[in-house]
Amino acid sequence: MSVDRTKILQDTIKRLIRRGATVHLHKIASRTHAADLAEVFGFLTAREQEAIFDLMDSLEQKAMLFSELEEKILLELIEDMQAEKIAEILEQMPTDDVADLLGKLSDERAKALLDLMTKEDSEEVEDLLRYDAETAGGIMVPDFIALREETTAREAIKALQKEYVDVEMPFYLYVVDDHEHLVGVISLRQLVVVPPEAKLRSIMATDVVSVQTNMDQEEVAKIVARYNILAVPVVDENNKLVGIVTVDDVIDIIRQEATEDILKMAGAGDDLVESQSVLKSTRIRLPWLLASWIGGVIAFFIIGYFESSINKLVYLAAFIPIIMGMGGNIGTQSSTIVVRGLATGRLNLKQMWEVVLKELAIGFILGFFYGLLLGVVAGFRYDLWLLGITVGLAVISSMTIAAMVGSLMPMVFARINIDPAVATGPFVTTSIDILSVFFYFQIATMLLHI
Amino acid sequence: MSVDRTKILQDTIKRLIRRGATVHLHKIASRTHAADLAEVFGFLTAREQEAIFDLMDSLEQKAMLFSELEEKILLELIEDMQAEKIAEILEQMPTDDVADLLGKLSDERAKALLDLMTKEDSEEVEDLLRYDAETAGGIMVPDFIALREETTAREAIKALQKEYVDVEMPFYLYVVDDHEHLVGVISLRQLVVVPPEAKLRSIMATDVVSVQTNMDQEEVAKIVARYNILAVPVVDENNKLVGIVTVDDVIDIIRQEATEDILKMAGAGDDLVESQSVLKSTRIRLPWLLASWIGGVIAFFIIGYFESSINKLVYLAAFIPIIMGMGGNIGTQSSTIVVRGLATGRLNLKQMWEVVLKELAIGFILGFFYGLLLGVVAGFRYDLWLLGITVGLAVISSMTIAAMVGSLMPMVFARINIDPAVATGPFVTTSIDILSVFFYFQIATMLLHI
Repeated sequence: MSVDRTKILQDTIKRLIRRGATVHLHKIASRTHAADLAEVFGFLTAREQEAIFDLMDSLEQKAMLFSELEEKILLELIEDMQAEKIAEILEQMPTDDVADLLGKLSDERAKALLDLMTKEDSEEVEDLLRYDAETAGGIMVPDFIALREETTAREAIKALQKEYVDVEMPFYLYVVDDHEHLVGVISLRQLVVVPPEAKLRSIMATDVVSVQTNMDQEEVAKIVARYNILAVPVVDENNKLVGIVTVDDVIDIIRQEATEDILKMAGAGDDLVESQSVLKSTRIRLPWLLASWIGGVIAFFIIGYFESSINKLVYLAAFIPIIMGMGGNIGTQSSTIVVRGLATGRLNLKQMWEVVLKELAIGFILGFFYGLLLGVVAGFRYDLWLLGITVGLAVISSMTIAAMVGSLMPMVFARINIDPAVATGPFVTTSIDILSVFFYFQIATMLLHI
Repeated sequence: MSVDRTKILQDTIKRLIRRGATVHLHKIASRTHAADLAEVFGFLTAREQEAIFDLMDSLEQKAMLFSELEEKILLELIEDMQAEKIAEILEQMPTDDVADLLGKLSDERAKALLDLMTKEDSEEVEDLLRYDAETAGGIMVPDFIALREETTAREAIKALQKEYVDVEMPFYLYVVDDHEHLVGVISLRQLVVVPPEAKLRSIMATDVVSVQTNMDQEEVAKIVARYNILAVPVVDENNKLVGIVTVDDVIDIIRQEATEDILKMAGAGDDLVESQSVLKSTRIRLPWLLASWIGGVIAFFIIGYFESSINKLVYLAAFIPIIMGMGGNIGTQSSTIVVRGLATGRLNLKQMWEVVLKELAIGFILGFFYGLLLGVVAGFRYDLWLLGITVGLAVISSMTIAAMVGSLMPMVFARINIDPAVATGPFVTTSIDILSVFFYFQIATMLLHI
């Protein structure tokens, strides 16, 4: 549903609620896809959300809505809901989503809800809660199809009809040995085209791509994306099959990680904060600005040190913004390319010097071009060609240094295992500001003898 | 395969090539997953790539490698290859990948390759080439399973075994009427659990999510992600089923669009350029820096206008970097949040004023905090509290204006249908630089009477 259609649905719902047109609302609430309702919920008031929710008939649909809703909205929605009602819905949700939700609640509340669920379901959830939320173990579902090697295709299809009706993504059948170790995989597609008496052992693929429970979710996503698979089996340290990560969760991870990287680079937190309060947003953004504040104060002391030069040639001050700005901008370009290259795996730490040298060359060429341009403008404006040469050289040095710092820093951070997306922004801008100003005045005092 | 494993494979291959250990290489080339080989190819020389490629036995594996390789590497690899050899491989590739590749070749070369392919395959490719590459039509595969409503489950499974062995993603069966209009969908999973004599009409779901051929690929990706489906059917303007877009392609699109947005915001092109030449990279990055150069020149004229003020209080110049820097950084935070919010659909243009007002408040609070801090430092340093108040107010005005401009601009661009990711970067930084400097000196001349 496009933004326009979301808007139409949202307007319709708001109008019907105002009018108290319950019959109509009931029809919409029960017929609209839960994913669409979840989208619309973001634009409704708490009261409107509750009105719609109460009109939904099926537990399955409510469960899907729970899975799709943004965390903050979901937490508010269930805040005043009876524990029994919530538990009823949780029973219908994929285990990984239940674990996610319970992880966000108080221990006491989570425990109360678990106690209300069937033993089987609550045990599955508790198993998942043992893993870190951002690892394969934390995002897997424990519902998968595991059969023995000697099972026949016919028996496997029977099993699908009887035992495995609840499995979320039943397109791969995993084959395990007597110790539940993962030994092979068959797609549902293969299963229907082989002779019914064929044993799984003879038709399964044995080079199964699998991941361990403690693998970071970003790595898991990369693997699913690389091998174009619909689900990846998760094994514990003994190669025992414990769950699968499905491609729909992988898509969410890829989007979420991209958003995280983008926001982190700008020092704006690691999740979209449009639904957060002004004060919370302020708190998230405050620390990053501190780095740039300190950098600014250092630049201020550097300029203060050259105060007598400015006293003699006051228009030197007028070039500070352009020299800093050109450096800052090319530095952002370089660091963005490197940070994204590292995140997507298209850049490799081994290529560090190659990349930095290339950026250095680009910085120099662009610096030469814009330095020349500025030098000419400055020379004409003040009829002082030595000033033109000074600011031209300052732009070249600022842009060359910035391209080098901007490409080197994220690689250094990655090498010492600091997330380059987080660290790059503040450090790159701040050090470029300081270096640009320093070299500018150094060049000016040398060339202009002031 | 992690970066480390890629590196090991790469080193092994390089060593074996140096030693001329063909038997070993042959084993590696034919046993390694094409997706892994594609990754390693990025780090090999053209000669090494060809050596490996020649040692690969199966056409299927070569076809998978072609599908996985980065465009630039693939184009170089096939440059000197015989047309017959290429056509043989193209026959084994998914039609959408063939269309992508041929779209990058000269018309003459593409035509020659099409002529060498079987008529059926070449017609399919030509059909795809009619669509814009970044629309549903351009990314779909024309291989899907379409059956009639009166087909039984048993007949459908038979059809899977006979007619549809080549279908890439056979997990959904689409149901069409006599005019090939899409009327329903059944998952392969449902098919194996229903009684064999059940007619598709009675078991199919009729509320099929589908997309039109001209829908932008980003919208298609959003739909697949939202409804957690493995493939979405593509219909033409008459609702005739013409292809499907599969989830593995959707993953690639989501990653590629995220990379595009990140790079565009930094003015660093729209694709990762690490494999491009220095000159080409320079050319891509040059225009964006022009905006910032022009902004810098304007700032320079503004400061020139206040030259006499600086002459009287020379240390005013020392605060230019910090006042510009704080504005620039908070402006980047605000615009990043809005651009990403718009891209992921979590922000809506209708919320424009709400978002801008919130950013304004955040900008003011942060400005007040850092302005106070700077005011105190400046007041102490120069023992002139009016100067402290001046720079404090300048920081507040700079950060408040920056947060407003940074959040407003991308929304305005989105409203007039200009990609906010492209336009935001240069315009936001440039206008913030100019406004910050202007208000700073305006405040200074008023308060300090200079």
